[in-house]
Amino acid sequence: MTDTEPFRTLAEFAVLLQSFASEDVHAKKAAAARNAELTKPPGALGRLEEIAQWYAGWRGDAAPFISHPQVAIFAGNHGVSALGVSAFPTEVTAQMVGNFSAGGAAINQLCAAAGATLTVEALSLDQPTADFTTGPAMTEDEVVKALLTGWNSVSRTTDLLVTGEMGIGNTTAAAAISCALFGGDAADWVGRGTGVDDDGLAIKTRVVTTGLARHAAVPDQPLEVLRCLGGRELAAMVGAIARARVWRVPVVLDGFICTAAAAVLAKAVPGGLDHCIAGHRSDENAHARLLEALGLRPLLDLGLRLGEGSGGALAIPIVRAALACHSGMATFAEAGVSGT
Amino acid sequence: MTDTEPFRTLAEFAVLLQSFASEDVHAKKAAAARNAELTKPPGALGRLEEIAQWYAGWRGDAAPFISHPQVAIFAGNHGVSALGVSAFPTEVTAQMVGNFSAGGAAINQLCAAAGATLTVEALSLDQPTADFTTGPAMTEDEVVKALLTGWNSVSRTTDLLVTGEMGIGNTTAAAAISCALFGGDAADWVGRGTGVDDDGLAIKTRVVTTGLARHAAVPDQPLEVLRCLGGRELAAMVGAIARARVWRVPVVLDGFICTAAAAVLAKAVPGGLDHCIAGHRSDENAHARLLEALGLRPLLDLGLRLGEGSGGALAIPIVRAALACHSGMATFAEAGVSGT
Repeated sequence: MTDTEPFRTLAEFAVLLQSFASEDVHAKKAAAARNAELTKPPGALGRLEEIAQWYAGWRGDAAPFISHPQVAIFAGNHGVSALGVSAFPTEVTAQMVGNFSAGGAAINQLCAAAGATLTVEALSLDQPTADFTTGPAMTEDEVVKALLTGWNSVSRTTDLLVTGEMGIGNTTAAAAISCALFGGDAADWVGRGTGVDDDGLAIKTRVVTTGLARHAAVPDQPLEVLRCLGGRELAAMVGAIARARVWRVPVVLDGFICTAAAAVLAKAVPGGLDHCIAGHRSDENAHARLLEALGLRPLLDLGLRLGEGSGGALAIPIVRAALACHSGMATFAEAGVSGT
Repeated sequence: MTDTEPFRTLAEFAVLLQSFASEDVHAKKAAAARNAELTKPPGALGRLEEIAQWYAGWRGDAAPFISHPQVAIFAGNHGVSALGVSAFPTEVTAQMVGNFSAGGAAINQLCAAAGATLTVEALSLDQPTADFTTGPAMTEDEVVKALLTGWNSVSRTTDLLVTGEMGIGNTTAAAAISCALFGGDAADWVGRGTGVDDDGLAIKTRVVTTGLARHAAVPDQPLEVLRCLGGRELAAMVGAIARARVWRVPVVLDGFICTAAAAVLAKAVPGGLDHCIAGHRSDENAHARLLEALGLRPLLDLGLRLGEGSGGALAIPIVRAALACHSGMATFAEAGVSGT
C-alpha cells in the first residue's frame, strides 16, 4: 500500500485502528514533574495543567509548544435533506465552501485569530449520499474514499488538529449515528440544527426512526453504522482523527456532528479518542448527551451551534495557552520565588 | 486638576463615578443589524454574537476589531497576612513581581499568547496595609494614591483591558469586601486562596468576622469599604476599571479578588460594571457567589485560581475572536449564499 492508500476496505481500516499508537507515559510523567516546579500554587492553573500534561504525553515531549494548528473542514451533501430536515436548501453546502475559499465565513476569522491553517475538502457535493431511510447512505467504496480524503488531509507539520464540517442535513445523520451507537429514542438525539421549526423537528425524528429501523442490524459494527447512516464529511472526519492518532497529533473536537463521527472511533477501538479533547459544548440539543456518553468534558460552553469547526477553533488558543504556560514559565528555583 | 490628578479625595472620585459614560446605543443597534446579515444561521455563534454587540456599543463602532489589549497587574501587601491567612510568606509578592518583570510567570505566557501588553505596578510593597481587624486598612491618602495608580495605568491605545493582581493575603481582603457589600457570613466568602489548610481557613473566617465587626458602620459606603477592608492593589483595580469606563474601553474581569474590587464600583454607581464582562469563574470558593450577586456570567470555567489576571487574559482570545467574526465575516449578499 502506498502512503495515499493505507487501506482499501473497511476491514483494512478496522485492522489499522487496532494498532493505534499510545501516549508516551514517560513524557507525561516528566511533564507532571515539571508542572509541580512552576511558579504558581499547585493546581492553580486548573484544567490548563491537565491539558498540558495530556498534550505532552501524546507528543512524547515533556515541554512542547504548539506551532502548527490545523483546522480541517469537510463538506458533504445528504440524501435525507430532500425529506425536509433542514432550514436551508442543499445548495448552501457548495455556497459555503465557496465562502470558506473566499475567506468570508466565521471559520476563516477564527483560524486567523488562532493562527491556524485552514484546509477545506469538498466531497462529491454533486452526489449526495443515498437517503438512509431506504438503503445505506454510502457504498463501501464511497465510505472508504471519504475516509481516505480525511486521512490524507492532515498535514505532516500539524501539531494540533481540529476537525469540522459543513453539510446541509448532517445533524440528521449525526443523530442517526448517535442513536445507533448509544441507543435511546430518535427524539433524544435530534435537534434544531441550523434552526428548523417544530414541524422540521418532527420530520427529523421520523427520518431517524425510519433509518434506524432500516439498518437495525448494524449497531454492533461502528464502521457499518458510519457507512449506512453517516455521510462523506463524517467519514472524512473519522479518517482525519485516525490519521492524527497514528502520528500522535492531539485533536480538538468540534460540535455535535464532529463528535458523532468521533464516536464511531470510540466504539470501534477501546481508548480510540484518548488523543482527543472536546473543544466546546454546542447548543445543538444532543451534544451534551453525546459528550457525556463519551466521557468528554468540553473546554468551552458558549452556546455555539455553527459547525465549520468553529467551536474547536475557538478552543485552540486555550490549548496553546496551556502549553505556553507549561513549557514557558519559570520554576521556583529559576525565579528565586519561595514555595509553600 | 491635571490629567494625572483627576481626583484628590474619595469624595471627588465618587463625583467622577456619577458622570460615567454610557454605551453608544446607535452603534450597538447597527452592530445588531450587521450581525443578522452575516453568513451563518441566526444565533449560531451564541455568546460571541452578544459579546461583539456589547463591545461595539462601548466602542461606538458597529464593526470594530481589537488591536491593543492590555493586562494591568497591581501588587500590594496586606497587614492581615501576619495573622496566618496565607499558605505563602509575604515576601512572595515582591518575588512574583520580579518574576513578572523577568517574564517567568503564567501571566507573561498568557499575554504573549493573547498578543496583549502586560503592565505591572507594585504598590508600596514594603508598607503593607494596616491590619483591618484593628483599624482601617488604608488612610484616605493611601487609598486615593492607589486609585490614581490604577487610573493612570491604562494606556490611551488600549481597546480591551484586563485587570489582575498579586498580593499574599488578598483573598482575605476580597472576602471581607464581598461580605461587607453583599451580606451573609464570613464563612460564605472565604476560601482556600493559594491553598491554605483547614486551620488556615478557620483563621481567615475569624479575621473576616472580626474585620466586619470592627467596620460595621461602612457597608453602605462602598468606597469606605474599599478603604477599610481592601488593599492597594484592589483600589488600583477600581481606579483602572473606572478609567476604562471614562474612555469607553471594555474590561474583562479576572477572578475573585478582581471581581471584589469591581463590586465596589457596582455598588457605588448604578450600572457601574456595564462595560465589564467576567472572563472566567475561578475555583476560589466564593467567586461563583460573587459573580451571581453581580449578575455576571463568566466566559470560561476551567478551574483556575491563580490571580495575576490569568483568567481574564485567557479570555482575551475569545473576545477578540468574537469581534473578528462580527467585523470580518461576509454577509449573505456579499458571499452569494442563500439565507433561510
